[in-house]
Amino acid sequence: MPNAISGMNDILGLLERLPGADTAADAAWASRDPLLTKPPGALGRLEAISRWLCAWQGRHPPTVARPRARIFAGNHGVAALGVSAVPAEVTVQMVANFAGGGAAINQLCRTFGIELAVIPLDLDRPTADFTRAPALTEAEFVAAFRAGLDSVPADTDLLVVGEMGIGNTTPAAALPCALYGGEAAAWTGRGTGVEGRALARKTEVVAAGVALHRGQPPLELLRRLGGRELVAMAGAVVAARLARVPVLLDGYVCTAAAAPLEAAMPGALDHCLAAHCSAEPGHRRLLERLGKAPLLDLGMRLGEGSGAALAVGVAKAAAACHAGMATFGEAGVSDGG
Amino acid sequence: MPNAISGMNDILGLLERLPGADTAADAAWASRDPLLTKPPGALGRLEAISRWLCAWQGRHPPTVARPRARIFAGNHGVAALGVSAVPAEVTVQMVANFAGGGAAINQLCRTFGIELAVIPLDLDRPTADFTRAPALTEAEFVAAFRAGLDSVPADTDLLVVGEMGIGNTTPAAALPCALYGGEAAAWTGRGTGVEGRALARKTEVVAAGVALHRGQPPLELLRRLGGRELVAMAGAVVAARLARVPVLLDGYVCTAAAAPLEAAMPGALDHCLAAHCSAEPGHRRLLERLGKAPLLDLGMRLGEGSGAALAVGVAKAAAACHAGMATFGEAGVSDGG
Repeated sequence: MPNAISGMNDILGLLERLPGADTAADAAWASRDPLLTKPPGALGRLEAISRWLCAWQGRHPPTVARPRARIFAGNHGVAALGVSAVPAEVTVQMVANFAGGGAAINQLCRTFGIELAVIPLDLDRPTADFTRAPALTEAEFVAAFRAGLDSVPADTDLLVVGEMGIGNTTPAAALPCALYGGEAAAWTGRGTGVEGRALARKTEVVAAGVALHRGQPPLELLRRLGGRELVAMAGAVVAARLARVPVLLDGYVCTAAAAPLEAAMPGALDHCLAAHCSAEPGHRRLLERLGKAPLLDLGMRLGEGSGAALAVGVAKAAAACHAGMATFGEAGVSDGG
Repeated sequence: MPNAISGMNDILGLLERLPGADTAADAAWASRDPLLTKPPGALGRLEAISRWLCAWQGRHPPTVARPRARIFAGNHGVAALGVSAVPAEVTVQMVANFAGGGAAINQLCRTFGIELAVIPLDLDRPTADFTRAPALTEAEFVAAFRAGLDSVPADTDLLVVGEMGIGNTTPAAALPCALYGGEAAAWTGRGTGVEGRALARKTEVVAAGVALHRGQPPLELLRRLGGRELVAMAGAVVAARLARVPVLLDGYVCTAAAAPLEAAMPGALDHCLAAHCSAEPGHRRLLERLGKAPLLDLGMRLGEGSGAALAVGVAKAAAACHAGMATFGEAGVSDGG
């Protein structure tokens, strides 16, 4: 395995050798786009998306022919503190629902031709309660990161990263709070639907975790405040970069899991597009912090990679337009120039 | 033909017998949605879209299995006044490009399985210059409206309405300016790319047309300031309503063409969703006026039905989730209730 890792330092080593954008593919895009039968810029962000696909796939024209979704599932010690409206056994029940084809992500993957794999991570062993100890030991952290690293086949041309884990909007709030500061309340949202006293309790849990672990380096924060599915998503994002696979980030939990990579190595998320903005208020704040403008803003807050899967349709359209449109010369259309 | 029309009064008559939403299909949606394996509301606007499909298709579950795009093309007398960055012959050239499969709309329809028809309307006979006379005679208006009425097969389950017509962002600006008031400059945008002096000239043309025709009833404004492709789009929107086909409105020209229907008969556009918000600044203002929140906001400004075709992907996803997801009972997932 070229990406074999056995400790935190190996992961930091991977971050140091992330490849950059492919400038030849980018230049090929920039040569072709002005020739296509449309006014310059008239396809708006579809143009930026096809260019981004070129630059990070390292080829021109770009394709979205083998999109894959990798959904990681984990359980959380903090779930026992009453941070969720839903009992922790729902994580394993939903993994069974994914296997049976009954969840939203199954319908979305079918709609857009996305190959789906669901990767449950030690669901019978929740993380430690991060208000008292690091959520994961270093060995657990490395194992979860490796599960993500190993999940991305090299012929994938677009990766959707998502998660399932009852309680996991609590680590999702704690991570950016610890990375960037600010009040816990500003980063903590309703998740599956907590309100009133339960939301206040969730906010206290976030604040307590941040108080205990704040000041650690970014990947240490991911180990101490994250959970297995968050760590695995970070691993999948790194694997994609190493294999020249662009990534669509899903919602708040996914973006929070990826944020420590950017904090540890600026530019580490340049191959990632924010697929959508979740209804969790912390997500918009986090995307602003990362300088990523979401493609879709439809009030979704489901997780499961659902927002990113929906954006695969937009990416397919973008690639199809750039690759398939006729040039002014081919079509005999005056270009007005 | 049940929708045979021979004059303006027949069109007004159609508006008086537009069917309403199907309350039984809507109720069936509302019974099923809370049973699906997701927190209530977690699919955001996807839920509103599947509900809208049910209500206006008049069946449950909704489908997006036979989406169709109808793109109307026309030429405009005002094009001779220098309102466009592109010469008028591009309209017919682009119609040939549509036929050859080389335009953006061809790639988008292929991506999302949309059947496409392009309907050119007397391209060798531009409308009259609306700064001097009504753009269309009543006979021309009725013929164009009928072309739209006749374009929607009854088994369509979602309709994309779009256009091609060099110069047509000028009538698109004039129509809402005449319907709702305000400065011509506030409704006039760059279209295919006019700037500086040319944009000032375009704004003067809009203002002159509005000054000449303002105060007429809404459908008279559509005849006097519109063009054949705008009138045909209005006809297609009405045909869709009569046949229980929900409609995705495209950009500024399409929405401006539909707006007189709503002004003539409030509620006439209730079966229409704003697929996207164009980069033309007047479009956002017009959508606000119509009370329609766009689904997508990607800076597109191409026309051709391109934004609406892109939104078909979102509608397919919405229908698939509502129809295909397992219920809590079927999946053995605790609903937390």
